[in-house]
This record gives sequence, structure tokens and C-alpha cells, in this order.
Amino acid sequence: MKITVLGTGMVGNAIASKLVKVGHQVMMGSRNTNSDAGQEWLRSVDGKAQIGTFAEAAAFGEIVFDCTNGANSLAALRQAGATNLHAKILIQVGNPLDTSKGMPPSLTVCNTDSQGEQVQREFPDVRVVKALNTLNCDIMIDPSRVPGDHDLFICGNDTEAKREVASRLCEWFGWKPNNIIDLGDISNSRGTEMFLALWVRLWGALGTPHFNIHVVRGK
Amino acid sequence: MKITVLGTGMVGNAIASKLVKVGHQVMMGSRNTNSDAGQEWLRSVDGKAQIGTFAEAAAFGEIVFDCTNGANSLAALRQAGATNLHAKILIQVGNPLDTSKGMPPSLTVCNTDSQGEQVQREFPDVRVVKALNTLNCDIMIDPSRVPGDHDLFICGNDTEAKREVASRLCEWFGWKPNNIIDLGDISNSRGTEMFLALWVRLWGALGTPHFNIHVVRGK
Repeated sequence: MKITVLGTGMVGNAIASKLVKVGHQVMMGSRNTNSDAGQEWLRSVDGKAQIGTFAEAAAFGEIVFDCTNGANSLAALRQAGATNLHAKILIQVGNPLDTSKGMPPSLTVCNTDSQGEQVQREFPDVRVVKALNTLNCDIMIDPSRVPGDHDLFICGNDTEAKREVASRLCEWFGWKPNNIIDLGDISNSRGTEMFLALWVRLWGALGTPHFNIHVVRGK
Repeated sequence: MKITVLGTGMVGNAIASKLVKVGHQVMMGSRNTNSDAGQEWLRSVDGKAQIGTFAEAAAFGEIVFDCTNGANSLAALRQAGATNLHAKILIQVGNPLDTSKGMPPSLTVCNTDSQGEQVQREFPDVRVVKALNTLNCDIMIDPSRVPGDHDLFICGNDTEAKREVASRLCEWFGWKPNNIIDLGDISNSRGTEMFLALWVRLWGALGTPHFNIHVVRGK
């Protein structure tokens, strides 16, 4: 399958590498196709992938992972272009991190709006699915790093798109279907993005980003 | 032990009833000591407790549970009075819910501040511990309603106060010490309060408020 990964940061890197490893044709989208980060990644996968501009990459894939830096996601997606993204599934992975006030980061948008919603509003023809934004990238692509049951949250307005994303995340990354919780429409991004505030503090308290949460049902 | 519970809503009700049941002297604090909610609660515990004004109740207890409605917590605590609360442990349970824009609720403060911090700033001599605000009140007072391991987050500036609160929550409500995660200082309230945004959506997706999360550590 032809898959686009927008963003050459740690998250884009991890997802793109895993997709190459499981046999897909991957094009990574970057602001600067000759950037050190992009070229280093290309070497790390033995050149078995491509790097293009955001627009070239968006045109290439059947499914698009948006792993751009949260604060710049809308700008990057505008460069990717509505026509190139038209009717495609866009898995929106980033959180709208604001590190301008130091650590831990706060969010540039939250509470009564979210980045998932902003992206869906700006690109009404794109099938936006917010997913993978509640955990470290090592666990996104290899959930077996955390033992037993632990959960992934997805949301979006397009039921068929969510079904496909859930199925692909199981197939490509090894998630168990029962551990993927569909929260509902894209406004639920507020919930998963605001979890960042607890997540970063748990990282501090536990001393590792390698954890996830499991929702345990009671009686 | 003499314990104060401020607030006659569902949460105050659940906590106060449990404390009476395990043998403590409880005074519930209310804006109106003759309110129907308060009187009904008093009948439900066969009159084995007291109801007072916020100030009377704050003066009564050795430990204070603040279960007031989030939007009104600061006003209620001002009525309770800094002198009555002086040097006491205040377990701050509420979330700063804003239901003015409909459901699901948003927060009146978040991201770069929190209710826990607001209360601590307003009452610098009070030993504020934010706790219990990430789950339904039935589970707060009876964690065995959710099977296996699931976690409670506490934070606050006073290490000794947090240690006592953790110990009391185990003793009174049945929490396991290993399931209480100390996140650090009171600014970590941002994390646990903002979790509300995910919690309300999980309630919707699961169809029950009777769940909790377990933090699963990986490798």
C-alpha cells in the first residue's frame, strides 16, 4: 500500500520506519526534502522509501499519517494541499503542544476546541481520524512493549474511515481490536488531546514514557 | 476522627456516608443547613452525623473533604474561612466544570492553571491535596467495584499531607497503596482535572460511569 507520513520528527520517523518494515511503499513529507532528519531517516531504512515535499507526499499515499509538530500542523497541511488530500483518510497523530512557556508543555488549543476539529474544519473533504496521540511513539508501533491490555482511543466523523483505521492499526502495528476504543465524532479529540496534560506528568512520575493506560470497566 | 465534608451533592453525599459507615464523626458543610439535599442525607445515615454551615463544618473537622461544585468551590471555601481551615489537610475533590455551554462540560480553568492551584494560592496555609477527581464517586469510596488494579492520582505541595491522605484513602475507602500515584506538586492538578475531558467521553462511549484507568508500565 502507498502510505504518506507527514513530518520527520520522532513520531513520523517511528511510524514511517515501521510501515517500511511491514512492506509498504512510504513517502515521508517534509518542509525541506534535504533536511538532515529526513536524509538520516532514509539511510536508516536503507533507502527503501522516499522523501517529498508535503504536497508530493500528500499526493502519493492512499492513507496519510499527520505526524507534524502540533503547533505547525495546519500550516503543513495547507502546504500538503486540499486537492492532494481530498477524500483520503488522514490519521491525525499530533497534539497541539505549546512549549513556549517551558516544560511541561501546555496546549495551543483545548477545552472548547481541539486540533482534530481544527483540521477537520479546514479540510471538510478529508476523512480525519484522531488516533495514537495518547502514547509514546515506541508503543504506538509496538503495543507489546506494554504488557497485557491497554487502550488506544480513536475518534472522527466518518464511521467507515474509523473502521479502516482501527483495522490497519491492528494489522500494521499489532494492536488488538478489543483495545481500540471509538469515542465518537471528531470533537472527542478534546478529550484525547487534553489527556496530554496528565500523560506528561505521568512520564515525570514514572520516569519513563513507556506506559499506557487501560480502561477497566466496573460494575 | 472528626471529618468535614463540604458540599451536599452526589460526591459529598457518597464520601460522607462512607465515612459515617466506617465509624467517624462527620459534619457536612452546606450553604443552607436546612436544604432538602442535606436533610435527606442526614436521614439516610439515621441522623448519625451533623450538618453545619461551611464555616461550622470547616471548624469541626481534623481533615476536610472539599466536594463543593467546582464552579463555586472558591466562594464556598471563603465562606468556610481561612481561620477554620488553617493548617488542615484539604482534600480537593471537585473539578472546575463549566456546564453553561451544555454537555459534555468544559472546564472553567485549565491548561496553564487549575482549581487545585487556585485553592492553594487563595489559602496558602491550608495543606491542599488534589485527589479522587478522576473517577465516579461510587468507585472513589469502593474501588473494588472495578476489578483488579486501577489507579488514583494525588498531588500537592506538602509531602507529609499527601502521605497521610494516601494512607487514609486506603484505610477508609479500601484503596491499595500501590494503586495511588503521587504526581508531585499541586500544579499537577492541571493533569488530573483536564483528564475530565477524556473521562466524560469514555462515560459516553462505555455507557457507564463505573470504570477507571490503570497505568500499565512497559519496557
